[in-house]
Amino acid sequence: MLSHAEITTLLISVGLLLGLARILAEVARRVGQPSVVGEILAGVLLGPTVLGTIWPEGKEALFPSTGGLPAARSALTTLSVTLFLLVAGMELDLTKILKRRRAAVLVSLGGITVPFALGWLPAYLAPQWMGAGEGITPTLFALFVGTAMAISALPVIAKILMDLHLFKTELGATIIAAAVIDDLCGWVIFGVILALMGTQAGHAASAASASAGTQPAVWLSALLVVGFAAGMLTIGRWLINGVLPWVQAHTAWPGGVLGFALVGCVLCAAFTEWIGVHAIFGAFFFGVALGDSRHLRTSTRTTIDQFVSFIFAPLFFASIGLRVNFATNFDLLLVVVVLVIACVGKFTGCATAGRLAGLPRKESLAIAAGMNARGAMEIILGLLALEAGLISDRLFVALVVMALVTSMAAGTMMQRFLGRSKSVRFVDYASGKTFVAPVPGRTRVDAVADMGRIAAEAGKVDVQMAVDAALAREQVLHSGVGHGVAVPHARVAGLSQAVVAIGLSPEGIAWGSRDGRAVRVIVFLLTPEQDARLHLDLLASIATTLRDPATVDLAATAKTWTEFLAAIKTSGAENSSR
Amino acid sequence: MLSHAEITTLLISVGLLLGLARILAEVARRVGQPSVVGEILAGVLLGPTVLGTIWPEGKEALFPSTGGLPAARSALTTLSVTLFLLVAGMELDLTKILKRRRAAVLVSLGGITVPFALGWLPAYLAPQWMGAGEGITPTLFALFVGTAMAISALPVIAKILMDLHLFKTELGATIIAAAVIDDLCGWVIFGVILALMGTQAGHAASAASASAGTQPAVWLSALLVVGFAAGMLTIGRWLINGVLPWVQAHTAWPGGVLGFALVGCVLCAAFTEWIGVHAIFGAFFFGVALGDSRHLRTSTRTTIDQFVSFIFAPLFFASIGLRVNFATNFDLLLVVVVLVIACVGKFTGCATAGRLAGLPRKESLAIAAGMNARGAMEIILGLLALEAGLISDRLFVALVVMALVTSMAAGTMMQRFLGRSKSVRFVDYASGKTFVAPVPGRTRVDAVADMGRIAAEAGKVDVQMAVDAALAREQVLHSGVGHGVAVPHARVAGLSQAVVAIGLSPEGIAWGSRDGRAVRVIVFLLTPEQDARLHLDLLASIATTLRDPATVDLAATAKTWTEFLAAIKTSGAENSSR
Repeated sequence: MLSHAEITTLLISVGLLLGLARILAEVARRVGQPSVVGEILAGVLLGPTVLGTIWPEGKEALFPSTGGLPAARSALTTLSVTLFLLVAGMELDLTKILKRRRAAVLVSLGGITVPFALGWLPAYLAPQWMGAGEGITPTLFALFVGTAMAISALPVIAKILMDLHLFKTELGATIIAAAVIDDLCGWVIFGVILALMGTQAGHAASAASASAGTQPAVWLSALLVVGFAAGMLTIGRWLINGVLPWVQAHTAWPGGVLGFALVGCVLCAAFTEWIGVHAIFGAFFFGVALGDSRHLRTSTRTTIDQFVSFIFAPLFFASIGLRVNFATNFDLLLVVVVLVIACVGKFTGCATAGRLAGLPRKESLAIAAGMNARGAMEIILGLLALEAGLISDRLFVALVVMALVTSMAAGTMMQRFLGRSKSVRFVDYASGKTFVAPVPGRTRVDAVADMGRIAAEAGKVDVQMAVDAALAREQVLHSGVGHGVAVPHARVAGLSQAVVAIGLSPEGIAWGSRDGRAVRVIVFLLTPEQDARLHLDLLASIATTLRDPATVDLAATAKTWTEFLAAIKTSGAENSSR
Repeated sequence: MLSHAEITTLLISVGLLLGLARILAEVARRVGQPSVVGEILAGVLLGPTVLGTIWPEGKEALFPSTGGLPAARSALTTLSVTLFLLVAGMELDLTKILKRRRAAVLVSLGGITVPFALGWLPAYLAPQWMGAGEGITPTLFALFVGTAMAISALPVIAKILMDLHLFKTELGATIIAAAVIDDLCGWVIFGVILALMGTQAGHAASAASASAGTQPAVWLSALLVVGFAAGMLTIGRWLINGVLPWVQAHTAWPGGVLGFALVGCVLCAAFTEWIGVHAIFGAFFFGVALGDSRHLRTSTRTTIDQFVSFIFAPLFFASIGLRVNFATNFDLLLVVVVLVIACVGKFTGCATAGRLAGLPRKESLAIAAGMNARGAMEIILGLLALEAGLISDRLFVALVVMALVTSMAAGTMMQRFLGRSKSVRFVDYASGKTFVAPVPGRTRVDAVADMGRIAAEAGKVDVQMAVDAALAREQVLHSGVGHGVAVPHARVAGLSQAVVAIGLSPEGIAWGSRDGRAVRVIVFLLTPEQDARLHLDLLASIATTLRDPATVDLAATAKTWTEFLAAIKTSGAENSSR
């Protein structure tokens, strides 16, 4: 039982950790980086690295190292990472592998073998310097470093591909399929290492009893890991796919499925923890089997995904920063060596394999850049190795830094190799200054003139010219796009950047649109004369965002720019999922 | 840090507890009872009452009383109940109170004062027998028992009203509004009691230092509780409503809002725990303020609600059963006394107040029956009192039993007073025996005949008669209802119970429906000649369930009865929310 004071401390520390993690994740997102960077930083700030250095008493008060709280924190982070791996597993799409077999297998093979070999060699030759744990044999340590270099991070890669609109392309599918194979192999190998080690640690502890009789236990453990993974991907998948319709048909919706998913995950996790590897293996492979079922509904996926990604994952990653002192354990040379091995290995391996599979040079490089992202998976791998005593704090810090750097670089590099750009959102060109609610004009012409004036003033171009251009265009091409939305447009010479002005009319203005509806949301586009592409992108963004009548309703009744933005931001997610 | 073995135990115990809680909740739901009954029973089975009695070592292995796990369990249950109260708070709809002021205020006043007085008296006169904690003054104890009798359980009441289709009626709104006032008052009073007690317990511990100087601290604490509640309902509400659009506009969706809700909840919980009452007050009042905001999107509400109701709540309620031995602490006389006081108090108070407010006798009784449900709230109240040392195990068990019995009785009693019945679902009249996919017949007439044969055989009536009746009706009234669904119908004399037969045709059968679509789902209704009402109810159920094209698509491609049922069950929730 926790005392009154301990419960208070627990709640404050969870609130602060989660709050700061979310805030810094938002900041990271703003500058185009994965949110995991911000989440880990939250822990670094509140943990031994910063708070513990400048105010040790404060850190100890917030995260006491005695009493019941260390156990409570340990339970919470274990459950959080277990659930995170459930979601990571659910995101693996096994069918993708089957479709893109040749290229994916080649790329993943290249992406595993080359970095593995490059990592294995120095670790085997200089285990002490690389940061092997005490009493760990060079072979085992080198096996781990090789695996750590070979793993990829599906969630980060998937996120980058979505941002670049590559997720559903041929190229995206190849990368995803290769990453899936990489991850599956990597985790199985790591599971075997842990299994071998678990008993090795037992050896070290009771060296006397290290008779030949205990040796089989090591291999039994390793065999159980491989067997469990293989079983989950075959019988487990088939079983879950068969049981799901029954659960959905005969239990409360959606509680039955949610309960089934979580109970299954936790029990599989308990099983793998019991056989001597970590709980997350069970969760991961259960997730793979569950996510593969065609009977799993999107809304179930979304509920689990949202709660885990935005609550449990930040909590877990922030707790990483609490674990070690990132300043004192930062060994620049080791960081550079690890980073170089990791990048050179993945790039050489994947790009060569891509060329062998017959892909063009640019695409091969883009695939390599994507596969190079290590993200959350590397960090979890490192943490488990640290907890198992396999590696030192120094190497752990180097692995975390490598994971973050490779993840941060992947998006930009892929973008460069492919010449792709991120999608345009019309609200990014608008602001509180170009927003007016309600529009003063009561007729179509007056309203267009009002909006033209606001946009021209914001864009610092001649007002009369912009208004005339918009009205002239209105004669030729009617701006009502239906659903109560109108998109008047003026193309102006000498404008440096597009300006979007947004005007609302809660009661509606008769516009003569084809669907006969009065216009309630006016989106005025003022674009540079030469940039025809941008205009089309803006129109596409407006069409996608304001497609849904419920969103238009909500947006039209917004009272402030913030409320309007909130209506737009929450639109897709409100009605569809993901 | 938890050890390897402890983590395994934690995962197994969480898995078993959650799994059994969900299974027994399903069983409870099947027999028409609130799921909390099943959830508590799971804890009773795995806790000291059953498992601890028949196999004490097994119970100790699963829930060890030493090491780090008691602290870990305590942290998990605290977080679970905190989140549960957040959701309970979010469900309170303050606007409902304003609309139905007079009746609601009267009913809630009657529902508070009468049971409070009836509970206060025996507790004040015979505190020992009623089960007061050691060193608790009769006044404080009587105050608690009064409050425990006066509280209601909004979540249970809301669920019953929804089941009976009363939630959106005048009557339903009055009951909800009265329960909201009841709950708000009850929790504030209980908060004050805990605040007063917190320092009283301090007194008992250090009797020597019990000088007049510490007395103000008690009242300060109590004042802080009332001030916090009042502040949350006014400034807090206004503040949250103002901040929400900003969060939605400028942070990741839906992560920003989810993070905001959880961080706010946890920090408010920490505050109330710190001022000396329990964490759940902060969570509850934060939930009330958050749930009241018109900017909170339905999908955010649903995500939090689903995860909490189906994961955290079962975990918490199951842990209740782990707390005490329900067999040895079961004092029949005390249980009966508590039950009688609770029921007589609520019934007299609410029914009289309802009559005073000018409501008809039947409605007044129905309101009283609804308000009598104590549900989860009473159990949480009792648990806090038990943990604070305010009451004995005996009284706690009596309160839990009273809460369960009143909740179980409420639905049936309301149904009886109002003559209302639960809604009809067409799938309840079908089964695997009356399901066929694909339908053998290739034409409309053949398919109707096929379905008529299946239904007639299941209903044990003459096949030819049923088929003829259906085909004759088909001539008069076309059975295609659009969206690829057809509902042929035969009314037959001598049939005891309606039979619904379902046939699928993935490729579709030309039906000549008004919307021109081929029919893929055929729902054949065979109803008793005299029961016209049932026929209409079945049609309404079909129309509601198969309104959504995505559901029809999913249902039409089902391969088994279970898959069909799963498609139907998950339909509404898949696309809308709640």
